[in-house]
Amino acid sequence: MNHKYDTVRPVNWHDNQLHLLDQRKLPHEQVTIILEQVSDVTQAIKDMVVRGAPAIGITAAYGVVLAAKNAYAKSPTDWQTLITNDIQKLSQARPTAINLVWALKRMQSKFATNNADPIATLLQEAKQIHQEDIDANYKMGELGTELLPNNCRVLTHCNAGALATGGYGTALGVIRSGYAAGKITEIYADETRPWLQGSRLTAWELLQNKIPVTLLVEGAAASLMRNKMVDWIIVGSDRITANGDVANKIGTYALAVLARQHGVKFMVVAPTSTVDMNLTDGSQVEIEARATEEVLTIDGKNIAAIGAKAWNPSFDITPAEFIDFIVTEKGVVEPRSSGMDIIDNAV
Amino acid sequence: MNHKYDTVRPVNWHDNQLHLLDQRKLPHEQVTIILEQVSDVTQAIKDMVVRGAPAIGITAAYGVVLAAKNAYAKSPTDWQTLITNDIQKLSQARPTAINLVWALKRMQSKFATNNADPIATLLQEAKQIHQEDIDANYKMGELGTELLPNNCRVLTHCNAGALATGGYGTALGVIRSGYAAGKITEIYADETRPWLQGSRLTAWELLQNKIPVTLLVEGAAASLMRNKMVDWIIVGSDRITANGDVANKIGTYALAVLARQHGVKFMVVAPTSTVDMNLTDGSQVEIEARATEEVLTIDGKNIAAIGAKAWNPSFDITPAEFIDFIVTEKGVVEPRSSGMDIIDNAV
Repeated sequence: MNHKYDTVRPVNWHDNQLHLLDQRKLPHEQVTIILEQVSDVTQAIKDMVVRGAPAIGITAAYGVVLAAKNAYAKSPTDWQTLITNDIQKLSQARPTAINLVWALKRMQSKFATNNADPIATLLQEAKQIHQEDIDANYKMGELGTELLPNNCRVLTHCNAGALATGGYGTALGVIRSGYAAGKITEIYADETRPWLQGSRLTAWELLQNKIPVTLLVEGAAASLMRNKMVDWIIVGSDRITANGDVANKIGTYALAVLARQHGVKFMVVAPTSTVDMNLTDGSQVEIEARATEEVLTIDGKNIAAIGAKAWNPSFDITPAEFIDFIVTEKGVVEPRSSGMDIIDNAV
Repeated sequence: MNHKYDTVRPVNWHDNQLHLLDQRKLPHEQVTIILEQVSDVTQAIKDMVVRGAPAIGITAAYGVVLAAKNAYAKSPTDWQTLITNDIQKLSQARPTAINLVWALKRMQSKFATNNADPIATLLQEAKQIHQEDIDANYKMGELGTELLPNNCRVLTHCNAGALATGGYGTALGVIRSGYAAGKITEIYADETRPWLQGSRLTAWELLQNKIPVTLLVEGAAASLMRNKMVDWIIVGSDRITANGDVANKIGTYALAVLARQHGVKFMVVAPTSTVDMNLTDGSQVEIEARATEEVLTIDGKNIAAIGAKAWNPSFDITPAEFIDFIVTEKGVVEPRSSGMDIIDNAV
């Protein structure tokens, strides 16, 4: 299949350094941050220099390479012990996306390799995680597009695009492929408060491909559905539990309930690295609570009355019953009937 | 009943001038704009210097006084003809809130009074519209509070407070009275994009009364309900049609659908000046589309990628079937069973 759109890649490895496109600055500035210390990688994930579940996993994999490289230079015999604490901190940088833990496990599985220089092995594994993610996105783009009817109008939420992955995107991968195939005729994107991933990131990366996009506030999505202006909702995920419950950006659950109410189809697109078969359902997923300043300020300036408190959960859980399809690179699941049982993502 | 909270009054008449608290500047600055020309009143309503359905109606009533005063000074015989065009423009300043048209009709009903100087009569009528609105809010505060159980946690949307009315507020009037009565233990407010009425106005005026409030993004409201953190949703309205359908700030409809899904009660609080018995249902209400800049910029600065379009309907329709109670100053309606038939708001 010919993928018609080249996309930005938010995570890159160059000259033994990790390059991250600073997503806090988009769409106004394109600034690349160059990292050589794993502690800086952990902080960059916490601060959302890089965000999006697959992109966080890829970043963490390269973070392990940096940690190992520095530790191996100090001690070729004890490097694994020296980085234990670093990897522990990295694994806790953000709690909801399971891809972070999944990538760290894959990297750790290569530690035991009896290699004169383990760094080359680890870098190869990180690059493979990265490339596999891009390939998975292309595959999901095909599988998701097959599900769509012609003349389809879609709404997405947050940014599950190139910027959230190795490249191309999960939900936006399907939207790119569906648009290229001529099946998608109209693309709407929630602005996605509080971080405005929709306005800042999704709109930016689609417009880079000259794909037109119309933004709306989350409060308007129900009217979009009621006015029969949208046929499918397509989103990504940060963690999918064994029964098919989906953790994703705050606001996703409301869209799923409203979609069911209005006969709009609901598709989740995520690589199997997002599936956590250790959790039976969504109630077991830790929902990250982020700083209230995300709600109370914009660009450091108060937007709310001084003294107001805020409640700022970063994710919510959409029960499997509200989801029509979960598209992975290994196939399409209808979670209401099968859960995620057909998926094998064992590391 | 002892109303425990004095509130700001956004519209005031002093020394033959109309004083409007500029709601675009809140909560950062308290700036009063003084108007003497009806054309400036029309512009102030368009620009949302003053907003909120009842407050717009009151403002328009005083606008008629200004128009009549200036026209009467020019021609004591032809003043009514001279202001026809002004009143027409005033009636079209914003399309959704019916209170504007209702107030203009009340003012016009006094034109025929055979009075040596009609201005005093008109000013008296405008002041009466204003005072009746405040009294209606106190009454609705009582009636709404009677509906609430003890230990009630509430969520409101937009600003249906003192700032949206003559004073005290509709939805926030019930919340004030319910909090004073000890029935309400927790108050949540949607930030209400794009204009941030929740963060800027609702939080500000509640905190002026030392009533604590917790803000959330609209996307988080469904999680608030799913986590059983809220028992009632209480909102205002811009127009209620004969069957009990409710036009209100964009985002209201989603809350109502989600409330039904989660067993959360849904209360609309609005004076009878908001009821439009000429429209049979909500599909006939004109929904104002406001400038896309409201979504794409904040304080004049782009927040979205350049080139992105936006869809910015300012209101939505909540069908009567999703509403448990509509509280008016003339009594409480359960619109699913009765529509608005018990309401008489003829001018």
